[in-house]
This record gives sequence, C-alpha cells and structure tokens, in this order.
Amino acid sequence: MAVITIERKVLEKNDAIAAANREKFSRRKIFSINLLSSPGSGKTSLVEKTVEALKDRVKIAVIEGDVQTDLDARRVGEFDVPVVQIVTNGSCHLEANLVRDSFTQLAENDIQLLIIENVGNLVCPAAYDLGEDAKVVILSTTEGDDKPLKYPAAFRRASALIINKMDLVPYVNCDPEIMKKNALRINPDLNIFTTSCTTGEGIDQWCNFLQSQINS
Amino acid sequence: MAVITIERKVLEKNDAIAAANREKFSRRKIFSINLLSSPGSGKTSLVEKTVEALKDRVKIAVIEGDVQTDLDARRVGEFDVPVVQIVTNGSCHLEANLVRDSFTQLAENDIQLLIIENVGNLVCPAAYDLGEDAKVVILSTTEGDDKPLKYPAAFRRASALIINKMDLVPYVNCDPEIMKKNALRINPDLNIFTTSCTTGEGIDQWCNFLQSQINS
Repeated sequence: MAVITIERKVLEKNDAIAAANREKFSRRKIFSINLLSSPGSGKTSLVEKTVEALKDRVKIAVIEGDVQTDLDARRVGEFDVPVVQIVTNGSCHLEANLVRDSFTQLAENDIQLLIIENVGNLVCPAAYDLGEDAKVVILSTTEGDDKPLKYPAAFRRASALIINKMDLVPYVNCDPEIMKKNALRINPDLNIFTTSCTTGEGIDQWCNFLQSQINS
Repeated sequence: MAVITIERKVLEKNDAIAAANREKFSRRKIFSINLLSSPGSGKTSLVEKTVEALKDRVKIAVIEGDVQTDLDARRVGEFDVPVVQIVTNGSCHLEANLVRDSFTQLAENDIQLLIIENVGNLVCPAAYDLGEDAKVVILSTTEGDDKPLKYPAAFRRASALIINKMDLVPYVNCDPEIMKKNALRINPDLNIFTTSCTTGEGIDQWCNFLQSQINS
C-alpha cells in the first residue's frame, strides 16, 4: 500500500534527526522524556506538579506540543522554567525536527531534565522517535481499563506508565488493577505509577523515579 | 513540505470513495453518523445507549473502528443489531475505503441509521470524510473545557457535540458552560447535547434529535 511506503520514508528521516537529538542530549547530560496520552488525561497538570516538585533540585526545561494554542506553555511558564511551545497547526504528533528546532531556543540554559509534552493523541505520537531517553504514557482512570489493549503501540514503546486521576476511581467504571494488568500484558517492563494531580497522590514516587533516572 | 503533498493525494482519493459511499447511503435512505472522540470519552457506551433507546423504532447498523481488538463490536453486538468491526492495525483513523468494504457485510440489511464509531483520536479522523451525513464529536467532562480550542478541526467539521460524563462534573475541573462556549467559538452551528451514560441524562434528547434527522 502506497501510504505505508511513504510513511516509512518519513519515519526513516525522522529517525535520523531523532538520533542526532539523542546524541546532543546525551553529550549535554540531559535526561529527556516524551509524554504521550489522549487529550485531557492530565499531561499538563502532571508537568506542572513535576516541575513544582523538582525545580529546586533539578534544572528543568519544557517543550510543549499542541495542535493549536499556547495555553499549555503559558501554564507551565508560571513556574519560572524555560518553556517552548510547538504549535503543530493540525498535525497529530511531534516529529524530531520540531524538537530539534525548538531546542535551539532552550540551548543556552543549563538543563538536566527535558520534558517534552506531545500532542494529545494516544496513537500517532507513538510512531515518532523524538530522541528522548524514555517515553512515558499517561492514562487517566476515566478512560477505562481496556485502553492498553486497544492502543497497544504507545504502551509497548514506553518505559513508564502513569495512571492519573486516581481520585476519580470511586466515580468511574475503571479498576486500576485491571488497567495495570492490561498494560503489563502489552509491556511487562513498564514502571507503573498511580497519581492524582488533585490530591497529590503518587507525585513523590513519580518524581523520585524521575530524579533517579536523571542521576543515573 | 513533502508530507503535505502526499497527504493531499491520499485525501483526494479518500474523498472520491467517500462521495461514492455518500451516494450509496443516500440512495438507500440511510442516515449515517461518524463519531469522533479521544479514547475513553464514552463513544461505545453512547452507541450502546443509543442503540438500546432507538432499536425498536429505527433499523440500525454499526461499524466499529479500533486500532486493535474487537471488544467494541462484541459489546454492541449484545444488542442484536448488525455490527462490523474494523481493526486498523495501528492506523489512527478510519478511511472511506474501510467503510466501503465493511459496508458490504451489512448491505443485505434494511438500514435507516448507520453509526460509524471512529478510532479513538480527536485529531486525525477529523481530516477523513467517510461519506457520512454528519460528524458527531463526543467530549467528556473529564477532558477539560479547553479542548475545543486545542483540537479545533473536529469541532469545526461536526454537526453535533455531545458533552458526555455529566455525572462527573462535581469531581473534575471542568465547566460545561465554558466547554460549550469554547465549542461554539469554533463552530457556532453545533447542536450541543449534555449526556451521562451512567445516569441516562440527556440520552432522550440526543436520540430524539437523531431520529428527527433520520426522518427528515
């Protein structure tokens, strides 16, 4: 099928740029994560909580990806860390060249942790390497415990899964234990964290894990 | 940029097949809807409620689109209506040819309403005409009231918006009135419904609207 061939070329080109990004981040001792999730799973809230918890211990920079608007960069910018907003203007995922170009605006900062918040989409961003050290999937309890089985690619390629909005478990038809089991069926090596940006549950564990990765 | 050119060709081909689908549905007096949303906004639950409410009044068939699994078709199949499952195997949206091909398995049924549940993705499916009479966006209150501004394409092309999971409003940081306003800023012609598949709120209004479209 023609589309697949074309897509492969796009991916090959993307992979080459991603490799260059990875090499650059490694040389500068930057640990980078690529946050993947559906719209509204709480990516930006989690970035805010993470920056708030870690910014006095770790030098952080953030790249925000959105189809439209710079709402997210403005939110994260409140925490006084360097932020760049990528507006993809309709495109459903970030690509490595966008990360390369936006990083030039961050390059003069001393950075230990680079957080890349991808476009809200659990499907397409999984196919595009950005040069990150780790992909992190965020899934909220409101999305249902079957989602790892229905959208396996993101889970297969991730190092960590954050099950967010744990405070809503009493009100939704979702068993976090089944969600974990389904995720581990797709990828047994996932580090799983359960969090709530409303109550603060699990934010410490997630941030400690992140810090341990930065120092390693 | 090369990708855009390629994409345009894919879309042109898709549009031709979508036009043929539309002509076929029209000739057979089938009213068809294309349901768009993020994963976990409640698309399948809403299809279940809709089928349950309308199936004694309206002859319904369902096409389920998923990246992986036939979980959704099995759920909807419980209601004794003809269902076909499309598994896209990684692709992030349905295309008109998939609808054309899956419709051959439904063609012998007498159908007044064809419900097409797209892949869970608020971005890519918006670009692909399937030949439907109306696109319907489902947004759950847990996703946040800023989402119409951040993912405008789906809202711009839709005839109706269903704000689902109204029962969770007390527990989440979302004002449905702001969500409505943001959606109407993108598309002032949207018919907006507020529903809960848990309490049944708004399902009647939505189904009555749908029936009025079928009869018209």
